[in-house]
Amino acid sequence: MSGNTFGLLFAVTSFGESHGPAIGCVVDGCPPGLEISAEDIQIELDRRKPGTSRHVTQRKEPDAVEILSGVFEGKTTGTPIALLIRNQDQRSHDYGKIVETFRPGHADYTYWHKYGIRDYRGGGRSSARETAVRVAAGAIAKKWLKEKFGIVIRGYMSQMGEIAIPFRSWDEVGQNAFFAPNQEIVPQLEVYLDQVRSERDSIGGKITVVAENVPVGWGEPVYDRLDAEIAYAMMGINAVKGVEIGDGFASIAQRGSLHCDELTPAGFASNHAGGILGGISSGQDIVVNLAVKPTPSIAKERHSIDKAGEPQLMATTGRHDPCVAIRATPIAEAMLALVLIDHALRHRAQCGDVAVATPKIPGRIL
Amino acid sequence: MSGNTFGLLFAVTSFGESHGPAIGCVVDGCPPGLEISAEDIQIELDRRKPGTSRHVTQRKEPDAVEILSGVFEGKTTGTPIALLIRNQDQRSHDYGKIVETFRPGHADYTYWHKYGIRDYRGGGRSSARETAVRVAAGAIAKKWLKEKFGIVIRGYMSQMGEIAIPFRSWDEVGQNAFFAPNQEIVPQLEVYLDQVRSERDSIGGKITVVAENVPVGWGEPVYDRLDAEIAYAMMGINAVKGVEIGDGFASIAQRGSLHCDELTPAGFASNHAGGILGGISSGQDIVVNLAVKPTPSIAKERHSIDKAGEPQLMATTGRHDPCVAIRATPIAEAMLALVLIDHALRHRAQCGDVAVATPKIPGRIL
Amino acid sequence: MSGNTFGLLFAVTSFGESHGPAIGCVVDGCPPGLEISAEDIQIELDRRKPGTSRHVTQRKEPDAVEILSGVFEGKTTGTPIALLIRNQDQRSHDYGKIVETFRPGHADYTYWHKYGIRDYRGGGRSSARETAVRVAAGAIAKKWLKEKFGIVIRGYMSQMGEIAIPFRSWDEVGQNAFFAPNQEIVPQLEVYLDQVRSERDSIGGKITVVAENVPVGWGEPVYDRLDAEIAYAMMGINAVKGVEIGDGFASIAQRGSLHCDELTPAGFASNHAGGILGGISSGQDIVVNLAVKPTPSIAKERHSIDKAGEPQLMATTGRHDPCVAIRATPIAEAMLALVLIDHALRHRAQCGDVAVATPKIPGRIL
Amino acid sequence: MSGNTFGLLFAVTSFGESHGPAIGCVVDGCPPGLEISAEDIQIELDRRKPGTSRHVTQRKEPDAVEILSGVFEGKTTGTPIALLIRNQDQRSHDYGKIVETFRPGHADYTYWHKYGIRDYRGGGRSSARETAVRVAAGAIAKKWLKEKFGIVIRGYMSQMGEIAIPFRSWDEVGQNAFFAPNQEIVPQLEVYLDQVRSERDSIGGKITVVAENVPVGWGEPVYDRLDAEIAYAMMGINAVKGVEIGDGFASIAQRGSLHCDELTPAGFASNHAGGILGGISSGQDIVVNLAVKPTPSIAKERHSIDKAGEPQLMATTGRHDPCVAIRATPIAEAMLALVLIDHALRHRAQCGDVAVATPKIPGRIL
Repeated sequence: MSGNTFGLLFAVTSFGESHGPAIGCVVDGCPPGLEISAEDIQIELDRRKPGTSRHVTQRKEPDAVEILSGVFEGKTTGTPIALLIRNQDQRSHDYGKIVETFRPGHADYTYWHKYGIRDYRGGGRSSARETAVRVAAGAIAKKWLKEKFGIVIRGYMSQMGEIAIPFRSWDEVGQNAFFAPNQEIVPQLEVYLDQVRSERDSIGGKITVVAENVPVGWGEPVYDRLDAEIAYAMMGINAVKGVEIGDGFASIAQRGSLHCDELTPAGFASNHAGGILGGISSGQDIVVNLAVKPTPSIAKERHSIDKAGEPQLMATTGRHDPCVAIRATPIAEAMLALVLIDHALRHRAQCGDVAVATPKIPGRIL
Repeated sequence: MSGNTFGLLFAVTSFGESHGPAIGCVVDGCPPGLEISAEDIQIELDRRKPGTSRHVTQRKEPDAVEILSGVFEGKTTGTPIALLIRNQDQRSHDYGKIVETFRPGHADYTYWHKYGIRDYRGGGRSSARETAVRVAAGAIAKKWLKEKFGIVIRGYMSQMGEIAIPFRSWDEVGQNAFFAPNQEIVPQLEVYLDQVRSERDSIGGKITVVAENVPVGWGEPVYDRLDAEIAYAMMGINAVKGVEIGDGFASIAQRGSLHCDELTPAGFASNHAGGILGGISSGQDIVVNLAVKPTPSIAKERHSIDKAGEPQLMATTGRHDPCVAIRATPIAEAMLALVLIDHALRHRAQCGDVAVATPKIPGRIL
Repeated sequence: MSGNTFGLLFAVTSFGESHGPAIGCVVDGCPPGLEISAEDIQIELDRRKPGTSRHVTQRKEPDAVEILSGVFEGKTTGTPIALLIRNQDQRSHDYGKIVETFRPGHADYTYWHKYGIRDYRGGGRSSARETAVRVAAGAIAKKWLKEKFGIVIRGYMSQMGEIAIPFRSWDEVGQNAFFAPNQEIVPQLEVYLDQVRSERDSIGGKITVVAENVPVGWGEPVYDRLDAEIAYAMMGINAVKGVEIGDGFASIAQRGSLHCDELTPAGFASNHAGGILGGISSGQDIVVNLAVKPTPSIAKERHSIDKAGEPQLMATTGRHDPCVAIRATPIAEAMLALVLIDHALRHRAQCGDVAVATPKIPGRIL
Repeated sequence: MSGNTFGLLFAVTSFGESHGPAIGCVVDGCPPGLEISAEDIQIELDRRKPGTSRHVTQRKEPDAVEILSGVFEGKTTGTPIALLIRNQDQRSHDYGKIVETFRPGHADYTYWHKYGIRDYRGGGRSSARETAVRVAAGAIAKKWLKEKFGIVIRGYMSQMGEIAIPFRSWDEVGQNAFFAPNQEIVPQLEVYLDQVRSERDSIGGKITVVAENVPVGWGEPVYDRLDAEIAYAMMGINAVKGVEIGDGFASIAQRGSLHCDELTPAGFASNHAGGILGGISSGQDIVVNLAVKPTPSIAKERHSIDKAGEPQLMATTGRHDPCVAIRATPIAEAMLALVLIDHALRHRAQCGDVAVATPKIPGRIL
């Protein structure tokens, strides 16, 4: 895989820079005949749109997506689908000092030493806006998975800083700016975040994303296991520092007699596995957790060095998120959709004519 | 990437089954001129050899590796290197009941529904012995990284079940069967594990693996970030349920002012990042944690179903690990080596002629 | 490789449709620090621009290329380079009848049966205009190869229909609309082509493309041989039906004592091989011939069927080339450049530190 | 694609050297449930076995293939299939002088300059025996294509040196050592070849390979066109210098009104295209020609240089083919099978649920 293409059969190549004229992607390998429109994609993009709450970046931009190719009379043709999003609000003058100095926690220092040249404007490729492209491509994948298999992919914030967010219902997730599945805790989160902002600091978060109704059998053994590809997709999201499937790190202290989900004719008796066994989907819900680190772009002064190696103090001004995890939920859903559609197609390629007489058991006992 | 090949430029394709006549791999893209012998590889394999302690599987096998190609007069030729390990001890009759019944926590059920055919003997491809191949390929990678860059890759067990294992020294890691960096705690681990075994159960573990002296600049932005590929490699190890880089899930509750490592002329002031920024190595130690789940192969009876969908009770007999995490350390080291060599080559491909005047700072303040 | 990405390390993903708002590509993996501008690319595009002669399609379009990303202060950054070319002249009403009927020799029938949906407007993805994108990406590759290695890539038309075009000089190639390396024969070609056009028919052509100063050692043995990748690149150009390296099909009737180029300290004594031995470049000129078929889009009526399977007569009206081979030269040069840069980077990845004491001999005796 | 793996979904990774203990390959992605045995593969291997005629190399070897994995109870499991062929007859002492001197027409000089190290024994990776592996993998592909789609892949020698071999019948191909579809011309071929051998020289050949009953719709537009991948596969066969599809180079001088195959309800009226339109299969027979160069390993003395750059005379002694094209037919068939199965799986992945009401017309009018 080249650095800019994600996926094997449903391959997404993104392009463009945050402070360039446009960003976009090419989706290659989408099955033909799927009804899709710019509106379908726009809905997903708007879920992540900054400016809808005081807790996220105040960049005002419509993020209007344009379909350049691959769709004819409202349906995918099977040929590559190019999506374009023009950049409009690019207050570049916010970034003046970083021409010469590396921001701690950002890719500045590493890019400089890798390429010997660094486009310092606005974070370039590693900016959070690049994720709009992933959400756009993910929208197509989500629609196909839903229509073909009834797969539902949804995520939420399960922790913010030190505050654990207990799950109450999926409906509540869309009712607040945090993607919190719990309206009751929202005031507490707002107070907390205002406090962090007043300290000119930032905090991390944990995102949980779930895929329901995934058929059994998706994934390739050994190196392209479904769980490995999910880990790859999630860790590839900027600011993610950890990925777990199912019980994840809690599995360490579990006995095998507890952790291993028993099978009954009525369904799997539990879901410690998080929906994946031997690298292949089991029919259980696929459950993934991501650890998102706190934003490095904070207004507090931090020690750093400049290109000459001299010590400097850096403080970021302008528009920043005190908690980038707030915007991560749609991106995590999109990445899970991209991994699943790729594996759906791979499975169809190799095993499209396999018919198994044994009954499949439900993912969970209803 | 096909399911059986790992890596883009240093590509490892493994083959063979645990209960077949042999397992092996092809390593393609190894730079020429590296001195390598079967002994170099054997040393790494022997680190993981079962039978050296009462706490691991009692399969007795020499795991003798043979180099079929790609080495001439003691040096790699640049052409593919084929390694072969013949299987000798294969007590297949241990697995009788599983012909018809699916073992909970194993890939049996998922393989059956994916392929419509399942080779039930000994776990087939998902068996722990397949990892010998990864360790063999990793040995070649480790040697090249060491010789060219002075990179040292070492791992240890940092937690077993509920017992946290504090790091004391690297030297102690090789002095016990657990890869514990702490001789003092070993008796406690042995008592604990004997207890688990007497309960006919199993427990999980956490592995920490560290790469020192990795140059700054390895990794590709956006989709092939070094951290994403590490996550992919580690989650692809059988029984792994979670991967973290640096502070991982602990980052969630950290303030940005703490988490973001400051840069000084004398070096990075901390290493919460775990050595990777913006998907590219920073020069700091690369630190990775893996969560390994408890073995599903336990002697306790568990509920399952058979091919006809009828309820069954399954208990595994024969040779099993009460804690597979014990053997994971060399595998995790090997996978980290494979990811790093692939990125070393990719970096050399794209940026082999980049010269940056700015001084690189040390990974940590000495 | 996904269907829309060419190359492994210097990877080009194209997008867009001939009759959509824009076409473009993403070039990923370009080494950083290369000076490049939209003008550099425009020069190459303009070499193929239709409308400059009565012998090519009368679509009037500026083909103005725009660099969306990957270039900063006039140099490549190492991050992906996105190029965009907006479509302007799209006289779609020329294609009315083909909504229901398949044009013989085109992809209409095959696309319909593959995807179950066909965008009939203007040839969609298989249109000759898509090649503008390849020429644009190839311009970047050409520049890097020239600056780093002094590689010169040039092509010409060596045959048109029944008329063989003897090579006289490289300078003459740019002096006529045919890319013929022979001004003397041009009047004969013009008469011939006018005759073909008056018959409302079309004719094929042969293109020869040469790369000089390619260092010895590029190419990967067995499956990614340089010659195999060149064949792949060239046969992938629309309308190409044959590819030869060096003496190609003439080698069949040659004795080994003639065909095998002897080596002398002063250089290779001949070049029947066309610059590639054992799949690796030898230092000799790389010489490739392409056979380009006659255009299917002719004004003569042809038998075909429509979507209902009923017989139909089809004649294409509007703007067409009586000899598409006329425009193939810049595309063939671009594809050769893309293959060579990819192999240059792969070679640097694996063998970047190889130093061979043996003198390299010149590609030919001067 | 790494240099040692062919194919995307049906991926073949080969390993081993001609003069090492064994050669083999791993086939990954084979659909499960295909009945396959070592005998099925052996039959294909034996078609190419040297020693069955005085016109091919006198290396005596059984080429017995062993299946190491991926087959259970006579059927493919969907997991990787490893094949092993042990080398037995390796008269290495035939190659003494080439330790220091480069053989003209071989890869010696290029390998040396690429890798800085060369395994001179017997041609190493570029030897003709490596092709046994391709034939073995191709046997599996052929069987699946035959059983699932009724595809028949057959080839023959259509030209030897200056002698054109007119096609009389498929049955005759297996009746002589040349794979000539014409028994009548065989004595002439034998006389001719004896003459060439007595001159201690070699001659080239042309192979034609045909795939019948390929469904319409296989192939990916733009870069992974079916014809491009076929060109890649064929040009990758050692000694091939040219590839044509359908009328190939003869298309140059054809009018469009002749070349473009008309469609009628009874089928395609001709097959100048060779079965591929717009990079996708049309249902017509796929027809491919390969130009095979004369063997460089001849007993005549040739000028070359040694590692020190000094002039040398080289004559190859021992066992050689005066016409390597004689053995190319099974290899060309195997490569076509490998390309077709890969595209069958890709098509099923993307378009497995496409249903087109329009009738498909026969590949040719019967």
